[in-house]
Amino acid sequence: MVNIGVLISGGGTNLQALIDGVNSGTIKGKIRVVISNRKDAYGLERARKANIESIFIDPKGYSHEKYCNVLLEELKKRDVELVVLAGFLKILSREFVNEYKNRIINIHPSLIPSFSGQGYYGEKVHQAVLDYGVKYTGATVHFVDEGADTGPIILQEVVKVDNEDTVESLREKVLKVEHKILVEAVRLYCEGRLGLKGRKVIIDRE
Amino acid sequence: MVNIGVLISGGGTNLQALIDGVNSGTIKGKIRVVISNRKDAYGLERARKANIESIFIDPKGYSHEKYCNVLLEELKKRDVELVVLAGFLKILSREFVNEYKNRIINIHPSLIPSFSGQGYYGEKVHQAVLDYGVKYTGATVHFVDEGADTGPIILQEVVKVDNEDTVESLREKVLKVEHKILVEAVRLYCEGRLGLKGRKVIIDRE
Repeated sequence: MVNIGVLISGGGTNLQALIDGVNSGTIKGKIRVVISNRKDAYGLERARKANIESIFIDPKGYSHEKYCNVLLEELKKRDVELVVLAGFLKILSREFVNEYKNRIINIHPSLIPSFSGQGYYGEKVHQAVLDYGVKYTGATVHFVDEGADTGPIILQEVVKVDNEDTVESLREKVLKVEHKILVEAVRLYCEGRLGLKGRKVIIDRE
Repeated sequence: MVNIGVLISGGGTNLQALIDGVNSGTIKGKIRVVISNRKDAYGLERARKANIESIFIDPKGYSHEKYCNVLLEELKKRDVELVVLAGFLKILSREFVNEYKNRIINIHPSLIPSFSGQGYYGEKVHQAVLDYGVKYTGATVHFVDEGADTGPIILQEVVKVDNEDTVESLREKVLKVEHKILVEAVRLYCEGRLGLKGRKVIIDRE
């Protein structure tokens, strides 16, 4: 059983998918703690309902580096082996990333490298997709490196963009796919099926 | 019947797809001329075999602007209404693009905006796709504007990247999709089914 820590900033439907994945036995892991950088994040409530320890850690008064160190401390205290960013709207410090090298998983609501990197988060991604006029978008689960959305890709899945799509309808379609591939990626990680060859993720599907 | 001019630099399998599309009656148009900026482009031979006028215009001795003007002249002389870039490895001048505004179609071997723009052409695209480790790539047909691969997208189609894929295998898979969506885009154009709303291409499928 892999000890999982989840970082969130918002509603946490991806967190809910993980909770369901653990409860159903799909994911051979245990969510030890959910940490939010926002007090009102509904994900904290979801964690509480699932009897998972949930903590709000206020970034106020901390430098960025220091805040990430506090997060690190809390995760290590609970023997967290895998960190999942489920809508966590903060870039992690280099030290944090090094400490959990290839053990931090992020979900991004586009087909990376399209519509990713600095400034592309939440609904801004879907707005950019609609403004550009691409015919396909999707979601990407990847390991986190020092860059913004630049780490090795674990899974991607494609979503068709229709003429009638709005930010809201696109968000919903992509979220469904996010839930699916995030749970799948964490499942594969917990079963030791993810290997790295350079920056390519090789999946052992046996 | 729309008068089509095709610009090429190489083997021209996309040109062949267009020739076949016209000959089968799928495309309600006529290829009036095929122009290459390389003397040894095999596409010139393909055109000859199909009894289409084919010309090599040597860029040597011309400035970029001037060369594009010569191309323009040759196309207009033949009443060309739609210009298709089928592996034409030259950026067109602003004047050329303005003259044929929203009447130039290009095919690119990736899911634009990923792996597109300056420096991404031919096999370099597939190499970059493999190096990055994305799980999906594809092809894009778009109208040409002043930028590199930045114009309004007409059609895209997705291709899965497998662990075993090489530049060569990816090239083949993507080429198949290129042929399909290029012919489809030209067909739609010739039937007057492509409309623009801002930079979004609206397809009238009736």
